[in-house]
Amino acid sequence: MMVNAEKERIAYSHLGRQSREVDSVITRLMASKLEHPELLSLAAGFTDNEILPAKLVQRAVNALGEKAGRGHLQYGTNRGREGLRRAVLDLLRSYPGEGGLELDEDDVLITNGSQQALYIIVQMLCDPGDIVLVERPSYFVFLELLKGMGVRALSLPEDGSGKLDAEALKGFLGRLREEGELERLKLVYLMGTFANPSTRCPGEDEKEALAGILQALERPVPVIEDMAYRELYFEKPAPARSLLSLQSWRGYPVLYLGTFTKPFATGLKVGFVVSPDGHCLETLAKIKGHQDFGTAHFTQAILEWMLLEGLYADHLSMIRRHYAGKARVLEETLVEGGLKEAGWSWESPKGGLLLWAKGPAGTDTRIGSAFHQRCLEKEILYVPGDLCFAEGQPHGFVRLSFGALEASLLPEAGGRFCGAATRAALDGATPRP
Amino acid sequence: MMVNAEKERIAYSHLGRQSREVDSVITRLMASKLEHPELLSLAAGFTDNEILPAKLVQRAVNALGEKAGRGHLQYGTNRGREGLRRAVLDLLRSYPGEGGLELDEDDVLITNGSQQALYIIVQMLCDPGDIVLVERPSYFVFLELLKGMGVRALSLPEDGSGKLDAEALKGFLGRLREEGELERLKLVYLMGTFANPSTRCPGEDEKEALAGILQALERPVPVIEDMAYRELYFEKPAPARSLLSLQSWRGYPVLYLGTFTKPFATGLKVGFVVSPDGHCLETLAKIKGHQDFGTAHFTQAILEWMLLEGLYADHLSMIRRHYAGKARVLEETLVEGGLKEAGWSWESPKGGLLLWAKGPAGTDTRIGSAFHQRCLEKEILYVPGDLCFAEGQPHGFVRLSFGALEASLLPEAGGRFCGAATRAALDGATPRP
Repeated sequence: MMVNAEKERIAYSHLGRQSREVDSVITRLMASKLEHPELLSLAAGFTDNEILPAKLVQRAVNALGEKAGRGHLQYGTNRGREGLRRAVLDLLRSYPGEGGLELDEDDVLITNGSQQALYIIVQMLCDPGDIVLVERPSYFVFLELLKGMGVRALSLPEDGSGKLDAEALKGFLGRLREEGELERLKLVYLMGTFANPSTRCPGEDEKEALAGILQALERPVPVIEDMAYRELYFEKPAPARSLLSLQSWRGYPVLYLGTFTKPFATGLKVGFVVSPDGHCLETLAKIKGHQDFGTAHFTQAILEWMLLEGLYADHLSMIRRHYAGKARVLEETLVEGGLKEAGWSWESPKGGLLLWAKGPAGTDTRIGSAFHQRCLEKEILYVPGDLCFAEGQPHGFVRLSFGALEASLLPEAGGRFCGAATRAALDGATPRP
Repeated sequence: MMVNAEKERIAYSHLGRQSREVDSVITRLMASKLEHPELLSLAAGFTDNEILPAKLVQRAVNALGEKAGRGHLQYGTNRGREGLRRAVLDLLRSYPGEGGLELDEDDVLITNGSQQALYIIVQMLCDPGDIVLVERPSYFVFLELLKGMGVRALSLPEDGSGKLDAEALKGFLGRLREEGELERLKLVYLMGTFANPSTRCPGEDEKEALAGILQALERPVPVIEDMAYRELYFEKPAPARSLLSLQSWRGYPVLYLGTFTKPFATGLKVGFVVSPDGHCLETLAKIKGHQDFGTAHFTQAILEWMLLEGLYADHLSMIRRHYAGKARVLEETLVEGGLKEAGWSWESPKGGLLLWAKGPAGTDTRIGSAFHQRCLEKEILYVPGDLCFAEGQPHGFVRLSFGALEASLLPEAGGRFCGAATRAALDGATPRP
């Protein structure tokens, strides 16, 4: 590190626009963790170390090492390994009702997790000042990403339960048109299953309704369907089919996002975009090429081997049971801690890694609130719900993750949260400066 | 794939600015490869499959698998593994004259190869219309990247041999100031050793001269020192020290780029930025966080293990001998093929993976030229030199890579190139439409 006097000489008075607007709440939450080392985190969206597939990865690397050639350690292409792209399509076709997908490997792009896919799609479609429609609530890192690029996030109207309000959306689009803003609308961002943070799964009827409205516009507005949590369902039947398979979306620019990070190994950082629109994937591949020349070939080769060996289904069964069990433990802990009596409510998670809860009227969970402060005192961390809304942020929600924290610590973590939340209820839950 | 009628419905008339300007010459060259499957490529900047460290990587993964915990398969931080960042600094301190580097792990950011480092640095510092100074010639993918972001590349004045012309640079900066453009100058991009494509190594005197000129400006303009090829020297002593260790650069915002792709495994895709400027690294980490939450933890863990086990030095000795041998083979082949008699000239590569050659007066190697066409007919691919210049592109250069093509094929490839080049000389080497 340089001494301060030297640091002061370095004045970045001319940072680019993106630098000035880039922010990271997770980084700030992590800073809390450093200040409070005993903290238990229900905030981080990490997976559980206990079930990461260490042995499977070892087998893959040893098998790759025995093969002739060392292509798995060489550069690949911007698009990603052809074998992995084909295996991704086979995976998609294995979902109920999706066997008929008419796509080939040219319709797949491998990315550094689905996070990179989100980033390059916004780069491709949006200029500063453009508009992206998001759900209420939506993925807070995506909202940060949009802000960092100077893109405006506006909310899709919903009926109070999170479900798309089709009539309200028509009205909303009409107002955008009247205001001359419709041409700035460049993208719609949907979470197709177990949405982050709500874990809601939109039904096919809802997906069909959206198709009708968007197809009535003068020009197609591309739609992201983010399926990062698709494999993490806790009960059958698995959620609704993807837009890729719905007749009403045929011929529309859909960008399907999937990943192997959450359901396999976060440390490999491999995701993918699937789209029937070749022009769009070609442009994404070029942008990605400028960023990294393609995702690490080695991690792709590991996943390709695992898929082709037919080992994924068993792995998924195991982690589904594991996370379903953790979801139950957290939920039971919250019930036993008196959270419902204190006026909190939530839907039981049916998949994913998150529990999305709403406090009683007047609850304020924002960073800096008395509630937040009390949680820090009790050494417990959550994601404040207001961060998950594009506008008109309600203050009463929290996102609790049961993914990373080891199962044995979940009761303690849940108990601490209940302790802070129920005391907050007694105090009237008003913010104190 | 969708049928054409459907495709036509998808009109991206509203692509963002970045999409409209993004291009990839390598992608176009690859397309040539598809049309001419017998092609031998001296164009690709790949490494040699034959010496990729498959066994070493297997050992690393097995060792990591035996350790308690599965942290290597979990998410990491935006910054990268602390152990790897410390190991990177130890590596830097092992270079001659660099043992005194006063930096700590907070001064290192791990990236997806040094390509991502280039990308996010430009994102951080530059808005469209800004100016970046580059060498003549410079790395053509970086020039593409700047164009894709709407940033202007201008050339650092040189003395005809590639060496910085300090007086001319002062005059150039003075003219920028007079034109009111100096405040648009945001970045200087230098290659510190074995520059791509020229393999030139600037001396310490040259680096000192640049420091004096830049420090006389009203405000510091950050400097990238790209050291991607640093480890690939063929003879001792290794090239000049980095800016990080030079007294004249102390307190100046230097961004040192290194990588494990070229010298270890391109398929792992791990590079790094080292900078004494904490504010700058913090901003870069946030931008990277939006793109991918940090480089794959798994590939980082492999490199960390390899460095801590002390296995890197032997690996580097082996690949230095290997590439030095390949450089000799290619060069001898060109000499034997009569390229010098035909008026071509080049400096013998003393490191790196490239040979940068200049044709006789009137040579035109551009894509679409008669020369290029003749090379395609002879099934041989090169990078046209004009792509490596920011402006005033000369037409007579080629970049030949001896990295990827197996050693046994280099004589054939070199022979084909000579065949095309010497016939071009006979024909007068003028472009034919």
